[in-house]
Amino acid sequence: MRVDVVTLFPELFETFLSTSLVGRGVEGGQLEVRFRSPRDFGLGKHKSVDDTPYGGGSGMVMRVDVLVACMEALDADARAAGKPQARRILLTPQGRPFAQSIASSLSTEPAIMLVCGRYEGFDERVRSFVDEEISLGDFVITGGEVCAMAVIEATVRLLPGVLGNAESTREESHGAEGLLEYPQYTRPSEFRGQSVPEVLSSGNHARIAAWRREQSVQKTLARRPELVEKVKKG
Amino acid sequence: MRVDVVTLFPELFETFLSTSLVGRGVEGGQLEVRFRSPRDFGLGKHKSVDDTPYGGGSGMVMRVDVLVACMEALDADARAAGKPQARRILLTPQGRPFAQSIASSLSTEPAIMLVCGRYEGFDERVRSFVDEEISLGDFVITGGEVCAMAVIEATVRLLPGVLGNAESTREESHGAEGLLEYPQYTRPSEFRGQSVPEVLSSGNHARIAAWRREQSVQKTLARRPELVEKVKKG
Repeated sequence: MRVDVVTLFPELFETFLSTSLVGRGVEGGQLEVRFRSPRDFGLGKHKSVDDTPYGGGSGMVMRVDVLVACMEALDADARAAGKPQARRILLTPQGRPFAQSIASSLSTEPAIMLVCGRYEGFDERVRSFVDEEISLGDFVITGGEVCAMAVIEATVRLLPGVLGNAESTREESHGAEGLLEYPQYTRPSEFRGQSVPEVLSSGNHARIAAWRREQSVQKTLARRPELVEKVKKG
Repeated sequence: MRVDVVTLFPELFETFLSTSLVGRGVEGGQLEVRFRSPRDFGLGKHKSVDDTPYGGGSGMVMRVDVLVACMEALDADARAAGKPQARRILLTPQGRPFAQSIASSLSTEPAIMLVCGRYEGFDERVRSFVDEEISLGDFVITGGEVCAMAVIEATVRLLPGVLGNAESTREESHGAEGLLEYPQYTRPSEFRGQSVPEVLSSGNHARIAAWRREQSVQKTLARRPELVEKVKKG
């Protein structure tokens, strides 16, 4: 899978792309990431990418012409290399909240383009040049870069061959369930007065499975009751 | 404000801390970030930080003793320097979904500790050693690092003196509102057949304000109707 990233700060991704699971995906060839900065298409001596808003108000607004030029340059590179065009995704607080179902669907695309620009303050017309808009959540951050990292990290682990088999199986079992995970324990068996629940050392697989299922439901009900509703409806 | 980060991958944050608004906060002294890796407290020749789960199953589970040792070392450093203890926050998909209200409340703390470890697969007992649990959303990523970056980025802009006055004002006006932002436009006035709405060049401030308010409500109703409900209730 190819990920094209439109960002003013490609250097933010350097270590990210060589670390942990994302690094494994890049190294294994399952993930290819390319960057292009809107600055390269900026205007005038200062290579400006933004300007003041029509109608007044504080803050700067990112220009549509600069962003579109940057997106189209990435597309032209892909075409020249005989590679598929990317599905364009604008990262913005106005988009659909990012969720596992979106990661699943993105992981089946041959190529996606993550458009970071300023997280707030795009020229509205940019929206008509993208296929989809994604938000990381209801909070204000400066740029889309952290959102892009979340999308890349969630998507790369769904690409065939990136996770080991054992890891994949575990992942699927939880993703399918839609509930919070059951409590996990490892050594030491006692730590500052807290012991591992007895059932987990019983060797009785059916009892362990029943306990885990029950804990998972209870925890979800206590912390995120709306997820239980979703599972019921699904 | 001080942010202590417990992470196996401190190098992921290097460029992040010197770039954009976060870089401004660090440079201006409003934000201080310290790292400590659980690896430093790992066990045996390989400095292991995780182990297999009690009760069976695939995947590794991060050890409670190692994580607690790492958190307590950061606390000891703070104490030795006469600095305040940090509010401990575990980054986990089981936590409260991160939102602007949480960023606001964190920005008033003298110090917070973001515990990254593996995003899945903590020993359950770790939860009893933290004050709060935060989730970035309902998707699976590998580690808490990207979540930590979102928390830092959303929080730093709320610290006094990090944003310029004009930026702050704009931010507050939207944060308070709870609706999606109205459409923004900047030059060029026409781009590939799409023009800037006339009202924005009218110079009539009351009409512009009314139009923006209306657009903001319409857009929120179309994209995120649940936010309108929240505003009404509030």
